[in-house]
Amino acid sequence: MAPQNSQFGLSPGSLVYIGPEVERHTVLKIVEYNDQFHREHTPEVEECHVKGRDEVVTWLDVDGIHEPEIIEQIGKIHEIDSLVLEDIMNTRQKAKIEHFDDYVFIVIKMLHFKGRQQVTLDAEHVSFVLQKGALISFQEKRTGDIFDPVMNRIKASVGKTRKNGADYLLFALMDLVIDHYLVLLEKISEQLDDLEEQILKNTRHDPINELYALKRELTLMRKYVWPIREVLNSILRGDSDLIQPATLPYFRDVHDHVLQAIDSIDAQRELLTALIDIHYSTLSNRMNSVMKTLTIYTALFMPLTLIVGIYGMNFDNMPELRHPEGYFYTLGAMVLVAAGLLFYFRRRGWL
Amino acid sequence: MAPQNSQFGLSPGSLVYIGPEVERHTVLKIVEYNDQFHREHTPEVEECHVKGRDEVVTWLDVDGIHEPEIIEQIGKIHEIDSLVLEDIMNTRQKAKIEHFDDYVFIVIKMLHFKGRQQVTLDAEHVSFVLQKGALISFQEKRTGDIFDPVMNRIKASVGKTRKNGADYLLFALMDLVIDHYLVLLEKISEQLDDLEEQILKNTRHDPINELYALKRELTLMRKYVWPIREVLNSILRGDSDLIQPATLPYFRDVHDHVLQAIDSIDAQRELLTALIDIHYSTLSNRMNSVMKTLTIYTALFMPLTLIVGIYGMNFDNMPELRHPEGYFYTLGAMVLVAAGLLFYFRRRGWL
Amino acid sequence: MAPQNSQFGLSPGSLVYIGPEVERHTVLKIVEYNDQFHREHTPEVEECHVKGRDEVVTWLDVDGIHEPEIIEQIGKIHEIDSLVLEDIMNTRQKAKIEHFDDYVFIVIKMLHFKGRQQVTLDAEHVSFVLQKGALISFQEKRTGDIFDPVMNRIKASVGKTRKNGADYLLFALMDLVIDHYLVLLEKISEQLDDLEEQILKNTRHDPINELYALKRELTLMRKYVWPIREVLNSILRGDSDLIQPATLPYFRDVHDHVLQAIDSIDAQRELLTALIDIHYSTLSNRMNSVMKTLTIYTALFMPLTLIVGIYGMNFDNMPELRHPEGYFYTLGAMVLVAAGLLFYFRRRGWL
Amino acid sequence: MAPQNSQFGLSPGSLVYIGPEVERHTVLKIVEYNDQFHREHTPEVEECHVKGRDEVVTWLDVDGIHEPEIIEQIGKIHEIDSLVLEDIMNTRQKAKIEHFDDYVFIVIKMLHFKGRQQVTLDAEHVSFVLQKGALISFQEKRTGDIFDPVMNRIKASVGKTRKNGADYLLFALMDLVIDHYLVLLEKISEQLDDLEEQILKNTRHDPINELYALKRELTLMRKYVWPIREVLNSILRGDSDLIQPATLPYFRDVHDHVLQAIDSIDAQRELLTALIDIHYSTLSNRMNSVMKTLTIYTALFMPLTLIVGIYGMNFDNMPELRHPEGYFYTLGAMVLVAAGLLFYFRRRGWL
Amino acid sequence: MAPQNSQFGLSPGSLVYIGPEVERHTVLKIVEYNDQFHREHTPEVEECHVKGRDEVVTWLDVDGIHEPEIIEQIGKIHEIDSLVLEDIMNTRQKAKIEHFDDYVFIVIKMLHFKGRQQVTLDAEHVSFVLQKGALISFQEKRTGDIFDPVMNRIKASVGKTRKNGADYLLFALMDLVIDHYLVLLEKISEQLDDLEEQILKNTRHDPINELYALKRELTLMRKYVWPIREVLNSILRGDSDLIQPATLPYFRDVHDHVLQAIDSIDAQRELLTALIDIHYSTLSNRMNSVMKTLTIYTALFMPLTLIVGIYGMNFDNMPELRHPEGYFYTLGAMVLVAAGLLFYFRRRGWL
Repeated sequence: MAPQNSQFGLSPGSLVYIGPEVERHTVLKIVEYNDQFHREHTPEVEECHVKGRDEVVTWLDVDGIHEPEIIEQIGKIHEIDSLVLEDIMNTRQKAKIEHFDDYVFIVIKMLHFKGRQQVTLDAEHVSFVLQKGALISFQEKRTGDIFDPVMNRIKASVGKTRKNGADYLLFALMDLVIDHYLVLLEKISEQLDDLEEQILKNTRHDPINELYALKRELTLMRKYVWPIREVLNSILRGDSDLIQPATLPYFRDVHDHVLQAIDSIDAQRELLTALIDIHYSTLSNRMNSVMKTLTIYTALFMPLTLIVGIYGMNFDNMPELRHPEGYFYTLGAMVLVAAGLLFYFRRRGWL
Repeated sequence: MAPQNSQFGLSPGSLVYIGPEVERHTVLKIVEYNDQFHREHTPEVEECHVKGRDEVVTWLDVDGIHEPEIIEQIGKIHEIDSLVLEDIMNTRQKAKIEHFDDYVFIVIKMLHFKGRQQVTLDAEHVSFVLQKGALISFQEKRTGDIFDPVMNRIKASVGKTRKNGADYLLFALMDLVIDHYLVLLEKISEQLDDLEEQILKNTRHDPINELYALKRELTLMRKYVWPIREVLNSILRGDSDLIQPATLPYFRDVHDHVLQAIDSIDAQRELLTALIDIHYSTLSNRMNSVMKTLTIYTALFMPLTLIVGIYGMNFDNMPELRHPEGYFYTLGAMVLVAAGLLFYFRRRGWL
Repeated sequence: MAPQNSQFGLSPGSLVYIGPEVERHTVLKIVEYNDQFHREHTPEVEECHVKGRDEVVTWLDVDGIHEPEIIEQIGKIHEIDSLVLEDIMNTRQKAKIEHFDDYVFIVIKMLHFKGRQQVTLDAEHVSFVLQKGALISFQEKRTGDIFDPVMNRIKASVGKTRKNGADYLLFALMDLVIDHYLVLLEKISEQLDDLEEQILKNTRHDPINELYALKRELTLMRKYVWPIREVLNSILRGDSDLIQPATLPYFRDVHDHVLQAIDSIDAQRELLTALIDIHYSTLSNRMNSVMKTLTIYTALFMPLTLIVGIYGMNFDNMPELRHPEGYFYTLGAMVLVAAGLLFYFRRRGWL
Repeated sequence: MAPQNSQFGLSPGSLVYIGPEVERHTVLKIVEYNDQFHREHTPEVEECHVKGRDEVVTWLDVDGIHEPEIIEQIGKIHEIDSLVLEDIMNTRQKAKIEHFDDYVFIVIKMLHFKGRQQVTLDAEHVSFVLQKGALISFQEKRTGDIFDPVMNRIKASVGKTRKNGADYLLFALMDLVIDHYLVLLEKISEQLDDLEEQILKNTRHDPINELYALKRELTLMRKYVWPIREVLNSILRGDSDLIQPATLPYFRDVHDHVLQAIDSIDAQRELLTALIDIHYSTLSNRMNSVMKTLTIYTALFMPLTLIVGIYGMNFDNMPELRHPEGYFYTLGAMVLVAAGLLFYFRRRGWL
Repeated sequence: MAPQNSQFGLSPGSLVYIGPEVERHTVLKIVEYNDQFHREHTPEVEECHVKGRDEVVTWLDVDGIHEPEIIEQIGKIHEIDSLVLEDIMNTRQKAKIEHFDDYVFIVIKMLHFKGRQQVTLDAEHVSFVLQKGALISFQEKRTGDIFDPVMNRIKASVGKTRKNGADYLLFALMDLVIDHYLVLLEKISEQLDDLEEQILKNTRHDPINELYALKRELTLMRKYVWPIREVLNSILRGDSDLIQPATLPYFRDVHDHVLQAIDSIDAQRELLTALIDIHYSTLSNRMNSVMKTLTIYTALFMPLTLIVGIYGMNFDNMPELRHPEGYFYTLGAMVLVAAGLLFYFRRRGWL
């Protein structure tokens, strides 16, 4: 479906996909599990009712948010507010949490690096609707299947996910997303260290564009990560009954990681600013050095050129010209002048 | 009526239009509707009493705020405070909300782009008085009829407006205004992306004025958008009985869009600052390159000019001049000196 | 009386005038009024007891704060704390409000422009003591009689002042002072617009001093205006019984104007900063252009000068010199070299 | 006693003097007074018990904080916590207030200017222990006897000190210290005004070091003054019973002066920043002017030099050289070229 | 064990050591003491149960956090949450406090300088688990045995540690860590003073890299120190029963030292920024001076060179050349021109 840029003029609550164009179709997947039991299948839209079963946790993963009919159908089946559906389909919506009577709605952003050589952040819009005993996750597009590690852990019954409820599943998925921020930051940090070394050792001539690209990525990253703090604060305040007190310590851990990411972003931004300063200082120094070379050349050759000019004049009566050793004395005088000037520049510290 | 710049020295509560000069006359329009019923007409000032009818929603749209007599009459009919009327006529008043016993007063700003080529923000002063079952809207001037999409939706009975009260109508109009901010920001963002590409690729010689114009627009925009947050916070806190709890989720949505606009403004301002830095770096680099060219020329030609000057001297006794190959040896020496200097500059990385 | 700079070492509560030297004598004026009645007279210090009459509002205007005896006498008659009197006489005291058992003490600053050509702010120290049914106002000096508009309105019985109490009078006077800020800001804004145009069109060579003077005035203005917010917040919180709830909407209006002034100051400061940036960019560009001119000249003439130098050498054996067309070939070669260099510079974008 | 730099590795509560080396011995002085009575004497350490006498106020002034034995003895006699004694002897401790069961502990900084020509701040560590009916003051060193004005006022029974309790004495001493800040700020302000004039009139070549020194002093001053706000806030909140409500208005006055000092510091720092900007702009302008001079010289003389070079060539066949008026025509052409170039530079605004 | 960079994709609560590679083995030590009794021994992991003995304080010091089995065993014995153990092993975790039912978990950072010549901060991850009557401390690695001063004081029964509980021991260890910050800051301050002197006296050519290194260290330091404030605030609010009210004054003292460290860091950062400004100003001044030299040389020699060029022309008819004194008059004219230019430059203040 063709993407749109805004909802201007549309009736509020209209379902419109806002984001880059997508070619693929939406893929649905249902995972049901409890301590003893595990089942995965790919349902039709009509049959994906996941709500309210006590004995198992049901996870509906919706991979694709660009088809309004599908999102609308899922929303109708699970009684999700149309404004929530609007947010699920709007990739411009930043991270947030909203509490409703019988579900919690959470938006976060999965971040990836696009391309190889240059760092470019790619943000994937991820939403969760947590209901009693069920979780619905919405992914913008599948870049290397971001929820696979958790799916595999559930299948292999590794870790505590199988022993816990849907709130723990929500935690596990959010933890995955946020731990990935730290992985990206680690990579940016390495790039920055490389750049720092090149700048300090002065082996790179124009690092400003790369510094700028990194700054831009960090600014973008901060914009995505910052509001997640508020999401986690709301969870930790116990605003929702759907997240049990026993799961809160896990969310506190995620909160710590978010703070760690923000700290790391801020530290790297400060480092970048300092590097830009150093770069300018280097530019100034190089300019200074060029100017000094120019000045020394000029100051050295101009007097000499004047001297040879004098003895190139054609006056009838120029006694020096007649002197048999005049030429050699003149050359000697020129050497003395040059030596004197060089000595003077050395004393001023220009050589 | 001739515009005025301030109320200095006037008795407080005096009705004076403060803003740019206007030529048109005020146009009044009343829209009455409920689920089954819809009527539009253009009343005289005296007959536009809209307050307090239970069965229908009455919307009085006042298009023109520069005629004190009309504003005063409307104020008298609907028992609106004279300080409120003063604010309705003062285009310098920023966005705000005030709660009175039986009405709510809201000021916001509709933003447009003036002209085509260069970005210039044009702010239209828009006020609302929400009363029980009625809404009065005041527009500074009609630039392409800003409330038309809502008027049409009511007429066509599209969306939920016809099924809801005056508070939903207020929401629909505010939503329209704020969604338009996002449209403008989208355009500014595109302009900025163009400029960024030109600066990074160095195909634009003096982008500083345009960068400055964009910065100015963003600063202005922030000034208009920022106080709207407070307006919506007050609504969301439930400060007024006139806005029903069922309508609050819609206002929460508008609040989200305002935050999105502010975030976007801030991100673009940061980007602008970074672009200005890059621009300066480019200037410095270009200067450096000019200076190097100068220095290389000077350093290359000065010694050669000295040599030819020496053999232009007129001493009687200059043995080299008599040598039959002297001229060619000298030219050879000059080539060697030039080659040596070029080699030296290449090693210093200046070529 | 000779002015003093500080109270260092003096016993606290000592009455000392701190401010610029004043030559005039203090002038007292009493205005009594109610709905039907109005009287103005100029009392002696001893007889100016204004407190506590129910049926009329009494306004004592003290024009001059540099004579400790007069201030002390007035303070004694009206039972004003000695620390308050100290603040009335200290022109360095910033805006503040203090609530006492039976009076409220308010300090604000009246701002004027000094001189004509250059913008220089002049702050006048204004204090109010609001008592039951009475207001005492203290002005540092009379520059064009700042309270005249209100005095005239009372005399002419225009507006609501005559129908209201002393708290409304306080509002009317504060409103006058604060509306004048907006008038000044309007003038500064016009100056800034002029300057902006000159800078953008590059028709002004050194605007930095004027930019700096404007920045200084705005900084000063902010310093004076900012604390008035707190004064009005305290009034609006209802901290004092002497200001009746019915008068609060008027003070809310003043509060709005103060915020408007602060917003305007901040916007103009931001604009100034941006203009300074543009100015520097212009300086850099001009430097670049100068350097390019220099470099082109040097690069163009140096090779030509070398060529003519070569054929100015005096070697016996220089075959070219003997060639009958040598001179013209050489001139031709020089034209070719010059044309080649000019072509090269044009391709590098320097011409 | 030799000074120490830190308490690292020492048992907490160990009494160590941290600060610059001191040669003098500690001097003790006791002043006892009430409305009718006044006595001053210099006790031995053992006999200086000042606590708890109802009828008189006892003030023990300890001048010297570098001798641990004395401080320890005084602490033991008056039951002062060892952590408090540690703070009394640590000149790095910033201003603070601590409330204990039967005393209040306050640290502030007395500031002086060191030297005459250059501004250098010298901070003196001052602590107070306020007990019922008694005050102990600790001074780091006696620079011109800072508490003398209060001592003299008590002796001469001037002002209200003799009529009030120990809390008023504390106020009087703190007032003295803080009023001195305003005196210093006045001096810095004058220095800054001088510097401003020199910079604006461009009569000073390198003001950056002095600007920097002033900035440093102001930064230091802010560091000392800022935490005093918190001390006074705590007093004004009524955190301590030892300070009577009747004395609070006096402390409110001190609080005002502290805010005034902070405002003044901030305004002067902003001014400094602006001056640094102007200084850089001036540097840039001067550079521009130097470069223009260089460019004009070069551009003017290079073409002329080329012309004379051409007619200095030694070709056999150069018809112009044979022309009897050739020399004069050439000189004429050179004058025309020079005039044309000068005209061109004037039109470009370089002359 | 090989280090790891993140926990991405791992099941939450997995014990992984995140930090630089370590070669050593973990060393355990138990110190038991009370007023009369003291015992130190090195237990096996299995036997190090320290919890809950009333009569003595038991301190288990775990030196090494890279072996998951050991940490896990200790965690199991003392019933420590697996998320806490994760934090103990994650050297990226910043300072924090967490309160559990029967223990308090605290993370702080011990800072050292690495290397000698250049300042490089080395952060050691230190965690504490305070239980009733017992403290477990975890150190990342032993750099000069950071807890030795406290161990020795306990052994020698110096100070109050032996007389107090486990909470006092926690205080003593935290105090040690934080006092060390002040020692480091003292050293940085000295380095900065040296650098300042060199820059102000202009005896150092390129200080930017060292300024940058210092700035980086201070930024890092602030990042480590800042969150400790929150740790201490939580303790001082009395959030935990395990820390007795009698110990709080000691923690308040530590809190003061943390604030002192932060103040010192901020002051030094501000100083650094100012030094960078001065450095740029110096660079600009030096450039200006170089440019002036160049310009003076050029302006002085170009006219002279033109004059000698004129009389080097070969026109047949140049009357001056025939004049017997022409040469000497010309030299004289050149001296006059040079003197005039020098006089002009002196008047413009360039010499």
